[in-house]
Amino acid sequence: MSKEITSRSQDYSQWYNDLVIKGGLADYSAVRGCMVIKPYGFALWENMRDVLDKMFKETGHQNAYFPLFVPKSLFEAEEKNAEGFAKECAVVTHYRLKTDPSNKGKLIVDPEAKLEEELIVRPTSEAIIWNTYKDWIQSYRDLPILVNQWANVVRWEMRTRLFLRTAEFLWQEGHTAHATAEEAIVETEKMLDVYATFAEEYMALPVVKGVKTPNERFAGAEDTYCIEALMQDGKALQAGTSHFLGQNFAKAFEVKFLSRENKQEYVWATSWGVSTRLIGALVMAHSDDDGLVLPPKIAPLQVVIVPIYKGAEQKAKIDAKVGEIISQLKAMGISVKYDDNDNTRPGWKFAEYEMKGVPVRIALGARDLENNVAEVARRDTKEKQSLSLDNLAENIQKLLNDIQQNLYQKANTYREEHTTIVDSWEEFEKMLDEKGGFVSAHWDGTPETEDAIKEKTKATIRCIPLNNTHEEGKCILTGKPSKQRVLFARAY
Amino acid sequence: MSKEITSRSQDYSQWYNDLVIKGGLADYSAVRGCMVIKPYGFALWENMRDVLDKMFKETGHQNAYFPLFVPKSLFEAEEKNAEGFAKECAVVTHYRLKTDPSNKGKLIVDPEAKLEEELIVRPTSEAIIWNTYKDWIQSYRDLPILVNQWANVVRWEMRTRLFLRTAEFLWQEGHTAHATAEEAIVETEKMLDVYATFAEEYMALPVVKGVKTPNERFAGAEDTYCIEALMQDGKALQAGTSHFLGQNFAKAFEVKFLSRENKQEYVWATSWGVSTRLIGALVMAHSDDDGLVLPPKIAPLQVVIVPIYKGAEQKAKIDAKVGEIISQLKAMGISVKYDDNDNTRPGWKFAEYEMKGVPVRIALGARDLENNVAEVARRDTKEKQSLSLDNLAENIQKLLNDIQQNLYQKANTYREEHTTIVDSWEEFEKMLDEKGGFVSAHWDGTPETEDAIKEKTKATIRCIPLNNTHEEGKCILTGKPSKQRVLFARAY
Repeated sequence: MSKEITSRSQDYSQWYNDLVIKGGLADYSAVRGCMVIKPYGFALWENMRDVLDKMFKETGHQNAYFPLFVPKSLFEAEEKNAEGFAKECAVVTHYRLKTDPSNKGKLIVDPEAKLEEELIVRPTSEAIIWNTYKDWIQSYRDLPILVNQWANVVRWEMRTRLFLRTAEFLWQEGHTAHATAEEAIVETEKMLDVYATFAEEYMALPVVKGVKTPNERFAGAEDTYCIEALMQDGKALQAGTSHFLGQNFAKAFEVKFLSRENKQEYVWATSWGVSTRLIGALVMAHSDDDGLVLPPKIAPLQVVIVPIYKGAEQKAKIDAKVGEIISQLKAMGISVKYDDNDNTRPGWKFAEYEMKGVPVRIALGARDLENNVAEVARRDTKEKQSLSLDNLAENIQKLLNDIQQNLYQKANTYREEHTTIVDSWEEFEKMLDEKGGFVSAHWDGTPETEDAIKEKTKATIRCIPLNNTHEEGKCILTGKPSKQRVLFARAY
Repeated sequence: MSKEITSRSQDYSQWYNDLVIKGGLADYSAVRGCMVIKPYGFALWENMRDVLDKMFKETGHQNAYFPLFVPKSLFEAEEKNAEGFAKECAVVTHYRLKTDPSNKGKLIVDPEAKLEEELIVRPTSEAIIWNTYKDWIQSYRDLPILVNQWANVVRWEMRTRLFLRTAEFLWQEGHTAHATAEEAIVETEKMLDVYATFAEEYMALPVVKGVKTPNERFAGAEDTYCIEALMQDGKALQAGTSHFLGQNFAKAFEVKFLSRENKQEYVWATSWGVSTRLIGALVMAHSDDDGLVLPPKIAPLQVVIVPIYKGAEQKAKIDAKVGEIISQLKAMGISVKYDDNDNTRPGWKFAEYEMKGVPVRIALGARDLENNVAEVARRDTKEKQSLSLDNLAENIQKLLNDIQQNLYQKANTYREEHTTIVDSWEEFEKMLDEKGGFVSAHWDGTPETEDAIKEKTKATIRCIPLNNTHEEGKCILTGKPSKQRVLFARAY
């Protein structure tokens, strides 16, 4: 099995695809734009999902499940939302197939089984959920509703890439209902913080928290908050969004509540989501030309042990010792695999686990046993060291922590080196072309200028950072006055 | 809030609907035949899913994810499977909506965005998965593949009932690939055992393990194994199926492997699934006229504590004690809620938690505190007892175990009392009409007789039990010779 990977410098985009496919994360499918998430990739998603799910529950949310389909009349009820997603909807029009009368071996859509009303495969669930909340909410006592859903959604994208942009993807979507705007905004910001914490502490991915410009808002939102990350090619990637929806959906679906003051008022809403896209971000942020590099906290497998032996006698001794090591690692909650498959050689295994990004590899040979040591290699820096078998598990635990920290630091240093402050159009264009990364610049605040900059440079405003300081300046394109810098980048 | 429930004797079917809706498990939605699974119902499903997922992983399976859509050409590749599901398929024909030129506020399907090939929303995933396995399998070294998927599926049912039969439902579907028929059959039987263990040990639901007749087989299977449970109205419910698919899908999708003997052979397959239908079974098996009765091992909430007090001073003392009790219960892994909401009275709370089937309710008043006791009520038998606050957590743990056992015993006794052996047509009809339950009878082995019996009585052959003994007899309808009894019942 040859598993050569295109290098990043040669073709970054191909390198990414090679990693996803050869690393065993996902593959293309027979359905245009849809992917198969393979067991190794799905185990990664499960780890991410489980951490997020725990964080959601700790912040008071419960899971529920709403229908896959949205009747067209509900879909179009909130106009901006409908307009935003209308162009990429999969539409169910029929509910039956029948045998083709002109070709008995084939099936055709039964024209008599046409739906009275078309069903949209959910691209997002605000419409179907707010139509449901109407029945759940009568008074302020029914609020807040803090619900999350783990689901598949479909957006008919024309240009797709594994994980980053697929017609079907997996995600979670939180949908909350509140009695006041203030409370809804607090929720929107709280969930942005949850996402940022998850990205930084688990994915080792530093993110900028910010607010989108009106141009880049979620369709139907009053405000879209986001976390933005930087990839190794200098392009930005939106890693999660949290929306303050105002009363837009409450008004579209007539969801009112009786307030403490005994008045009928419209309910305030938020929604927030992250998706399997995060796996694409993870791959692009940390991996190298030898394969995936995964953060220990979410890696499907944290440690692999490879025996190096000649003959059954040596093998038996190693097996016994490995048994002890595995017990110790498992007792510390570390996932470990002993690969003693004798169909493949150690060198092949080393390359395979490097490709898969397993954070720590332990090689144990007969001479190591005599010396009471093991060769321990870390995936991130590729450093090897000989560690005593005494206290090995404790030292592996420390090493895993160290790798987690190192990945974050490395990504953070890269981001610092690729965040530039510019004050002229020439500098702006030069930075985007020569260095990439985030470019912090003044903008006159109009959508027209934003569009013009995008047209000229392909760079978009990723966000207005939440920690922005007030600073007077002039728009890099129009020279008009500006009160704060915004963060530009070319993006995925 | 009035939450009166129809009694079982009055209208069993309405009783079931009342429990599902008023117990907060699920509700109807705006989409025909699709349900909303509410937070309490979803928490129940999560508990069931987590136990099953662990059992799957312990038996060597990994999770993966395959596309929601099946292109029509793949869907029809395995003819029997296609024929079985063609009549209940949701079909995506278009990928875009556009503004209605004659009514600007409305959207219509864009006729220019018609798919070249229609996409079927998966009713089951054998087709899309076996088309994928073709790329995963070259040699015997790639086998077995032991993969499971948690997903939503759609079957366009005309008559739907919450959980029991919905157009969209959640399920897991295992899809395994093997080098030999023997190995695939072992897998099929192993997963049936996993389902039976889950049903009996967690759901407290006794099941009969058996094999379906050819009439009742999964479309495309060589053999369908099933577990069958009995509901309180004497009707049977198929609670899980495990299929030996032979080489049918391998042949349809040309999935071959190089054997150890260096020959190209078709791969052997199994698939197996359980769905949110299990929640329907759970509700109907144990609940009573006051609401849900849930087995402690999968109940979303195992214990609720209700304070009974007058004034802040009493409340403060109770709060302090409850804090201790909660710590002790949580330390034992028992889920507990303290409901000190002062908007509702204790009596209302008692009724509410009875409705929701919380296994144990603890009421704690000022006098109880003085006497160092609490009033503990079990949901299943409604017995109340005064328990010492010393060792309360240990005693609650024992009580939960006892409730779990009692629910199983009660269901098992019901089933024993409603399993009848009959040898004549008169008896057969009489038993079905007067008593219901499983009727064990001889059958001549032909699909024609099976159909005729169904036509006359609405009873179907639920299964040929795996533990059947060889016994000569005469078919209850035709009098023709039979070699074993089969289990008949009217069923959901």
